[in-house]
Amino acid sequence: MKPYKPAYYRDYLSLDAILNAQSLRSAEYNNDQESAHDEMLFIITHQAYELWFKQMLTELDSILALMSQQPLPEPDVALVLHRLQRMNKIGPVMLHQVEILETMTPMDFLDFRGVLYPASGFQSVQFRLLEMKLGLQDSQRLTTHLRLDDRDNARLDAVRQQPSLFVLLEGWLERMPFLEWQHDDNGNDDGNNQPRYAFWQEYRLAVTAMFDHERQIMRETMPDERTTAQVLAQIAASEQSFSALFDETTYNSLREQGVKRLSFKATQAALFIFLYREYPLLQLPFRLLESVIALDEVFSLWRYRHAQMVLRMIGARIGTGGSSGYDYLLQGAMKYRVFADMSALSAFLIPRRSLPALPPNVSSMLGFSFEK
Amino acid sequence: MKPYKPAYYRDYLSLDAILNAQSLRSAEYNNDQESAHDEMLFIITHQAYELWFKQMLTELDSILALMSQQPLPEPDVALVLHRLQRMNKIGPVMLHQVEILETMTPMDFLDFRGVLYPASGFQSVQFRLLEMKLGLQDSQRLTTHLRLDDRDNARLDAVRQQPSLFVLLEGWLERMPFLEWQHDDNGNDDGNNQPRYAFWQEYRLAVTAMFDHERQIMRETMPDERTTAQVLAQIAASEQSFSALFDETTYNSLREQGVKRLSFKATQAALFIFLYREYPLLQLPFRLLESVIALDEVFSLWRYRHAQMVLRMIGARIGTGGSSGYDYLLQGAMKYRVFADMSALSAFLIPRRSLPALPPNVSSMLGFSFEK
Amino acid sequence: MKPYKPAYYRDYLSLDAILNAQSLRSAEYNNDQESAHDEMLFIITHQAYELWFKQMLTELDSILALMSQQPLPEPDVALVLHRLQRMNKIGPVMLHQVEILETMTPMDFLDFRGVLYPASGFQSVQFRLLEMKLGLQDSQRLTTHLRLDDRDNARLDAVRQQPSLFVLLEGWLERMPFLEWQHDDNGNDDGNNQPRYAFWQEYRLAVTAMFDHERQIMRETMPDERTTAQVLAQIAASEQSFSALFDETTYNSLREQGVKRLSFKATQAALFIFLYREYPLLQLPFRLLESVIALDEVFSLWRYRHAQMVLRMIGARIGTGGSSGYDYLLQGAMKYRVFADMSALSAFLIPRRSLPALPPNVSSMLGFSFEK
Amino acid sequence: MKPYKPAYYRDYLSLDAILNAQSLRSAEYNNDQESAHDEMLFIITHQAYELWFKQMLTELDSILALMSQQPLPEPDVALVLHRLQRMNKIGPVMLHQVEILETMTPMDFLDFRGVLYPASGFQSVQFRLLEMKLGLQDSQRLTTHLRLDDRDNARLDAVRQQPSLFVLLEGWLERMPFLEWQHDDNGNDDGNNQPRYAFWQEYRLAVTAMFDHERQIMRETMPDERTTAQVLAQIAASEQSFSALFDETTYNSLREQGVKRLSFKATQAALFIFLYREYPLLQLPFRLLESVIALDEVFSLWRYRHAQMVLRMIGARIGTGGSSGYDYLLQGAMKYRVFADMSALSAFLIPRRSLPALPPNVSSMLGFSFEK
Repeated sequence: MKPYKPAYYRDYLSLDAILNAQSLRSAEYNNDQESAHDEMLFIITHQAYELWFKQMLTELDSILALMSQQPLPEPDVALVLHRLQRMNKIGPVMLHQVEILETMTPMDFLDFRGVLYPASGFQSVQFRLLEMKLGLQDSQRLTTHLRLDDRDNARLDAVRQQPSLFVLLEGWLERMPFLEWQHDDNGNDDGNNQPRYAFWQEYRLAVTAMFDHERQIMRETMPDERTTAQVLAQIAASEQSFSALFDETTYNSLREQGVKRLSFKATQAALFIFLYREYPLLQLPFRLLESVIALDEVFSLWRYRHAQMVLRMIGARIGTGGSSGYDYLLQGAMKYRVFADMSALSAFLIPRRSLPALPPNVSSMLGFSFEK
Repeated sequence: MKPYKPAYYRDYLSLDAILNAQSLRSAEYNNDQESAHDEMLFIITHQAYELWFKQMLTELDSILALMSQQPLPEPDVALVLHRLQRMNKIGPVMLHQVEILETMTPMDFLDFRGVLYPASGFQSVQFRLLEMKLGLQDSQRLTTHLRLDDRDNARLDAVRQQPSLFVLLEGWLERMPFLEWQHDDNGNDDGNNQPRYAFWQEYRLAVTAMFDHERQIMRETMPDERTTAQVLAQIAASEQSFSALFDETTYNSLREQGVKRLSFKATQAALFIFLYREYPLLQLPFRLLESVIALDEVFSLWRYRHAQMVLRMIGARIGTGGSSGYDYLLQGAMKYRVFADMSALSAFLIPRRSLPALPPNVSSMLGFSFEK
Repeated sequence: MKPYKPAYYRDYLSLDAILNAQSLRSAEYNNDQESAHDEMLFIITHQAYELWFKQMLTELDSILALMSQQPLPEPDVALVLHRLQRMNKIGPVMLHQVEILETMTPMDFLDFRGVLYPASGFQSVQFRLLEMKLGLQDSQRLTTHLRLDDRDNARLDAVRQQPSLFVLLEGWLERMPFLEWQHDDNGNDDGNNQPRYAFWQEYRLAVTAMFDHERQIMRETMPDERTTAQVLAQIAASEQSFSALFDETTYNSLREQGVKRLSFKATQAALFIFLYREYPLLQLPFRLLESVIALDEVFSLWRYRHAQMVLRMIGARIGTGGSSGYDYLLQGAMKYRVFADMSALSAFLIPRRSLPALPPNVSSMLGFSFEK
Repeated sequence: MKPYKPAYYRDYLSLDAILNAQSLRSAEYNNDQESAHDEMLFIITHQAYELWFKQMLTELDSILALMSQQPLPEPDVALVLHRLQRMNKIGPVMLHQVEILETMTPMDFLDFRGVLYPASGFQSVQFRLLEMKLGLQDSQRLTTHLRLDDRDNARLDAVRQQPSLFVLLEGWLERMPFLEWQHDDNGNDDGNNQPRYAFWQEYRLAVTAMFDHERQIMRETMPDERTTAQVLAQIAASEQSFSALFDETTYNSLREQGVKRLSFKATQAALFIFLYREYPLLQLPFRLLESVIALDEVFSLWRYRHAQMVLRMIGARIGTGGSSGYDYLLQGAMKYRVFADMSALSAFLIPRRSLPALPPNVSSMLGFSFEK
């Protein structure tokens, strides 16, 4: 057994390395001038970001490893969820760090901005790795030129072909049972190969019934004809929006165009989870979907807040051609979503009272009892 | 003297009115069904928003009254600043309330969404009043149809012609002295009508000198010709972006096109304040400009966060023509900025070391001494 | 079917009632003086608190109703958890509202503080109801005089005898199976009345083994005798702290003294849940315990932050006898914990590697499989 | 001129050092077991804290250098304020980092807690330096044994004798003019050595008048004798609390006992600033006082939140003698205040309407005019 060496806070945390890693370039290159006081803030803020990116990557890597299991053991779903939630918890710190950095005024920044050339936050390879491992596609990027050096590019290349969280999640959804079900009353396959329950069919019928019912209620309760007509038009538009969902061919052509990304089958499974999330067995899957949607929002909100800061710090120039750094960042905030297809599903939820009941054997399989 | 009636918490805060003002429409209109549990959350969250909007309007109205004074007494600048900062402090609560409301899932919302028709958050007249009093222009809006009833429209019409914060701030900036200065050593006009100091001229010279200096340094220090060429091209682009600022005719034509809004003179004054903000007398004006920029960001961030929530709650539909609610809200988050011209000025700051020194009499006027 | 009346934002939210419920007492009683500007902020902040208290009570009442069911259906555990988490999400808004109110300076407060006499935030009956329904006991209070009027006292009296969340949670924990288990391999009782598995016994053995193992490792790996002695002393102290837990008589006498509140049996169940929380079936119970602990922290942190604000606003007086308002609030922040016994259990967790394995039939009962 | 070496993000931020500074002791010492997943989170969170502590020390050191100037130039007051506000902005990140760390459950912590022995967060020398440089006194500490090694103790010793922020601030307050004032109308000393204005005297008279006036109003407006008696007793208690403030001997004996720390003269100056803060010249001093009070609250709130986390993570043990880690931390949260005397002054503010007017020459000196 290895003899124990008592720990000391400073050594344990490698503080000599951490706290001596701030070299001010303004001290080196600002001619005839002292170093810029605020460069320390600039460096430390970015280092803090990189520490948290490393933490996020640590969690994400462990999540990817867990999700690569087929089948994925149930306790590991809980673990994946726990670690996704931890990633989400890092969000508020990322946002608040922007507020600290913003105490640097644009003129304070000008005191050393020149000596940073041509370094850029876009060169954070950890952030690029995060995006890639989550599942952001190269084709979604506003630019292909990431300005990284060879060593950093090599790190990206090494993971580019590995399955991302998006891909692994899609596969896990596709493997979900329950969507089609054939069995006798004891839950055994009855051998005649006829599905007794097909979620997709039930759901379509329920959607149609729901719109019919809505139309009828509107006709009976709206105060006047003009209002009735407006409401009916709105219902028709809503109903129309379901058609792409119901037609696999249309859906797949949207996928080919890049409008949709999640496979048809995984979409159905995700919708099933959203609709029946109150069943105990679907709690974890539901919360897992919620977590990846929240993760998208964390990054999106941070990109937006970051763009606001850049606007305040650098400003948008008058009359320059081309897109400014601000616009570029803003476009990214909106376009760089990995799990947009999951959030978009909320448009296809239907009220609980319109929801088709599950057949008893599916229902009992999805439930369990803690107390007897 | 009026006899004092002792106060009691519940009466003082009119809690009987406040806490009985939640009528669930799902209880009234959800046929054959109990009321929707989450409608209470929906109502209370919106009521809390409206309370905070009232508080913001209270502050803004007092700010507008103070700013209408000509001249604006110096202690009132401090008061205006204090109240702007209070408005900004309300921002985090507005953001966090979104997170509370988001604990309502899309399906929970569907339990009562139908009975809200056709009410909409766009009908918050207080929010419209806030936008208008800050200075958002009808022409900036993505839609002219605000869906308000006559009574609410009348409230908007009543303030539409009143000077907004933007207008009052612009006027106050235009009245700022210091930009042109002619005097003898005692600060008196020396009668020969020749300005001894003209900020704009000095600033232009400094900008030119700065770019010349930068070019020279780059030529001397860049490691190779390719890098030098890149950097010089970048400097040229930067210099180009100043031209619209320096040519009043160009600037005014940008104003007519709606690209710029702040007057040429107020722009100069604001830039002067940004550049020389370290002088004690410019501290308050500087912080006032910072506060209105921050206020823009508060509303912008909230609109963005709100759009994120709507996406999660309602989703974006597949294949529907036209812009979804989400896109609409997102566009608003970016376009509805009142003080964009103030934030844009950061692009025209120059480093402290390039800043022209103020003449001694201006400088001493802008300073003061607390200790002797 | 009742004819539908289209909704309008202002009417739906009863905004006429909400936004006209701010009557400034400074306008009425400040002699020879205009109303105090900041009284509006004071009123609106408190009204916003009361709205959120109403929301918390709404959630808590529904939680109490759900928890009163015996047995508590599993989907309702998820619902209870969801609503507890919503209550926790209100915490950050409660904290941030303090920051808004703090933009009022002490002198701004003095402008109207006099006319509030003798009203006090302690008169918030909704807050008292929250405390009581969560399970705060009258005996825990620093004072019995709550300064409420008869009507408010009647509201408190009406709920004083009803089971609180603490009581219902304790009952639910006591009903938890798994702690003692007798059965054949098919999970049926084998009729001989001898428990084959008793959690408490297994856990005790594991604790003893863990300390023995630790002692051995320390003896082998510590660098010198002095360190070894220190560490062994520490281990002995830790082991000692378990003794009250293991002896029911000791435990119950601590309960009688008010040191402990949670029953011996519920304590065992809670510890079981904490230790084996990774089993799917224990996920929800674990998260439920975490949520009530978090709820305690939300209120505790808010009380602390509130005390800080009072200190800043009113100050602590020099030389006055007795406890100041600040000290009083601070004591409350520390003492008014309902679920302290649940948080205290973390002291009795043992590392995963020391944890006794569950017998296969218990283990399989606690697991389930989503994928096959 | 030194040739410019283009910057690259990774090198500029020394990321190779920062991101390779996480060595898991669980990987080294956990026998027969893999490393603990959550140790990475534990290390990174603490490293992020240390980075922010370094930033705070950077700001504080520059503040101390600026404040050491006699006289302190006015623009430097603005700079001190700016940097204090930056320190305060770091507060929310410190708080949110606790929430990230709390995603580690007590059992996750047990997976590696043993191998940390005997390291402790109390060994953060940067945090001790912060406390010391702010002005926390050794005599205020709950323990004198800080558990640091020689190297870290030497760092503390090196600054122990240097003037803290408290000391420098006190000196600056004592040097404030305005408290006593003798001069002719042009602000020159009139030679007769009789103060024409003495703030302390005026303030005492105003306090007496205020209480007399309050008593009179109460007698006239209270609805009944019992209420009147209660209110008069309360007024008497309030008046009593001023006596220690007015008697220099009493005050100084409180100082000797350690009840008060701020000198009598600095106390007067601080009170003057609080009372007349609306004069432009007192804006910065007022905001500076507010900032140090806020800084105390930032640390206090963080200590409290930290104690809450420790309670959840480690728990309080039953039946152990002596104070638990939790209680210790909690006591610190309340006792470790440096600027308590400044916050306590709010108890001695009087309403604006009771405030003695400043003589015209003092008043005009404290004002200035931006617009003419």
